Amino acid sequence: MRAYNFCAGPAALPTAVLEKAQRELLDWQGTGVSIMEMSHRSQEYVAVAEKAEANLRQLLNIPSNYKVLFLQGGATLQFSAIPLNFFGKNAKADYIKTGIWSDKAIKEAKRYGEVNVIDATVNVNGKTGIAQSQSWNFSEDASYVHYCENETIGGVQFKDIPKTKAPLVADLSSSILSAPIDISQFGLIYAGAQKNIGPAGLTIVIVRDDLLDQAKPEIPSLLKYANQAHNQSMLNTPATYSWYLAGLVFEWLLEQGGVKAIHEKNLAKAKRLYDYIDQSDFYDNPIVKDNRSLMNVPFTLVNDSLDQLFLQQAEEHHLLNLAGHRSVGGMRASIYNAVPLEAVEALVQFMEKFAQAHR
Amino acid sequence: MRAYNFCAGPAALPTAVLEKAQRELLDWQGTGVSIMEMSHRSQEYVAVAEKAEANLRQLLNIPSNYKVLFLQGGATLQFSAIPLNFFGKNAKADYIKTGIWSDKAIKEAKRYGEVNVIDATVNVNGKTGIAQSQSWNFSEDASYVHYCENETIGGVQFKDIPKTKAPLVADLSSSILSAPIDISQFGLIYAGAQKNIGPAGLTIVIVRDDLLDQAKPEIPSLLKYANQAHNQSMLNTPATYSWYLAGLVFEWLLEQGGVKAIHEKNLAKAKRLYDYIDQSDFYDNPIVKDNRSLMNVPFTLVNDSLDQLFLQQAEEHHLLNLAGHRSVGGMRASIYNAVPLEAVEALVQFMEKFAQAHR
Repeated sequence: MRAYNFCAGPAALPTAVLEKAQRELLDWQGTGVSIMEMSHRSQEYVAVAEKAEANLRQLLNIPSNYKVLFLQGGATLQFSAIPLNFFGKNAKADYIKTGIWSDKAIKEAKRYGEVNVIDATVNVNGKTGIAQSQSWNFSEDASYVHYCENETIGGVQFKDIPKTKAPLVADLSSSILSAPIDISQFGLIYAGAQKNIGPAGLTIVIVRDDLLDQAKPEIPSLLKYANQAHNQSMLNTPATYSWYLAGLVFEWLLEQGGVKAIHEKNLAKAKRLYDYIDQSDFYDNPIVKDNRSLMNVPFTLVNDSLDQLFLQQAEEHHLLNLAGHRSVGGMRASIYNAVPLEAVEALVQFMEKFAQAHR
Repeated sequence: MRAYNFCAGPAALPTAVLEKAQRELLDWQGTGVSIMEMSHRSQEYVAVAEKAEANLRQLLNIPSNYKVLFLQGGATLQFSAIPLNFFGKNAKADYIKTGIWSDKAIKEAKRYGEVNVIDATVNVNGKTGIAQSQSWNFSEDASYVHYCENETIGGVQFKDIPKTKAPLVADLSSSILSAPIDISQFGLIYAGAQKNIGPAGLTIVIVRDDLLDQAKPEIPSLLKYANQAHNQSMLNTPATYSWYLAGLVFEWLLEQGGVKAIHEKNLAKAKRLYDYIDQSDFYDNPIVKDNRSLMNVPFTLVNDSLDQLFLQQAEEHHLLNLAGHRSVGGMRASIYNAVPLEAVEALVQFMEKFAQAHR
């Protein structure tokens, strides 16, 4: 049987997507070969790739003046690619700091230019949150403003899209496709695939086309957005199988009713879990309510000596990967698009029983 | 039915590997989750990753002072990563030019330092080959010497490993694991996975550990071999599913008897095809015999107006992807490890019939 998988990433994929991939693994649509054995330049594969992009454009309502790139290297390679692509004319940017991932982006950007760090983390009565935007000191001349829309490790998410003068660049790795978002407010968004898109090894970049030509000269050719945009992300062989699987996920999302429909399900899942934690005196969520993540729900046991027992018994109940990130400990339930409400229901029921047994 | 797939890459994978992947796609070894839904830091996944590396080390007899890295971005990203990693102390290298891929590596390296190009292409009685090494002018102070061991597009392969004073860096994308090779003669070898290793989106780098610390300061952190080596290629989330599939291919190769045994099969396949072409006056191979590729066999029809008909009828016989690279035209049969002798036999029989019908 399929377990309930709360992994932060590589994360659960829709069972229907895996079943379809399984069916056609050895013979894609009667061609006699696997899709992963097919030339990326073949007519058949190009149609698969283009359909994936078209479906993503539909799902996110991406304006036509944005390029959609299917790249490799994860969000971490984008931490370098972004300053390398945008620091050619003015090597200066504002970075909003809200947790571990935005901090990693900051450290890498500093290697390529001047970074104005806006520390937006606040502590309100012992809970972590994001400061009000009025307190943020943007530079007058930044090439862009970077932020991490949802901090996967901390479980902290922005309530609103920041208003900025400079183009806004956002890491949406763990929140893309979980809720409607207005792409036109961004200069660039990027996301590693391994949460809401597909398998690890694929990275989506959506970039406004007027921003393509300001790369630093030392940029590796493959990392240059302009090069990839002009070659439909096929400057070299892309991660063809991951791109195909992403396409299956996009199709599945459309079948679910699109991003608006999946967002409603996500809201219901998150409400069920946060509501249960809030009424409990056995569990706690450390985040300010307005900044709670829709996708990553960290929680602690009031008595942390029970952590290991909790994780062990959860696993026995087929509730997998509930340990918090190794840097923070505690628990974390990642409830991405592919995690069904039943999984959250099963988790809450287990949490309830565990609390009763150990209070 | 499975067709015979002569694609240059992404290329045929062993049917047994795809069948195993298919069986366990939704539930890896009773865990209730797909291997692609598993954290790269989980005990189970780390064991899969380590076993893949151990099997590759066994297959290639890799000495213990070499690191094996499982990276992303293809050989093309290595065209940048190599000079960025090795030009920190002395931004100068020798590059041997033998075709389109070595030339791409040269163009990218020139962006980061001084490149001494050794043009080793020769024309002998209308056939393309590689010049004798006595004619190569190596620099006295190169940081490394780069070459492409097998030119996938041209179908040109080195007969011997070049003898160099500086560490030897080799692109083995289309020849790795096809024949025994003495790793200790190299400073670094690299290979995109999509020919003899696994699906596109994975890149193997094997690097001698004394070469790790000479990177240029502007190198993206993720491209720095030292960083990846110190983090077991998990500086960020690697391409977990591709790594797993590569591991299945390595297991399959061991079951076949290892690289020596597969090499014998490859020799038999290549001999069958080249021998047939050589005795024919209808087909021609444009490469000097000593430099013919074991993996990529380009051939032309003496009457090239029949090319399209040849390709169309081949496809009707389930002989797929025989068109030459778009930059050179003609035909090319890529006969990687996963292409069985029966496929070559079927191809030769078809070529024979086609020649009889059209001479």
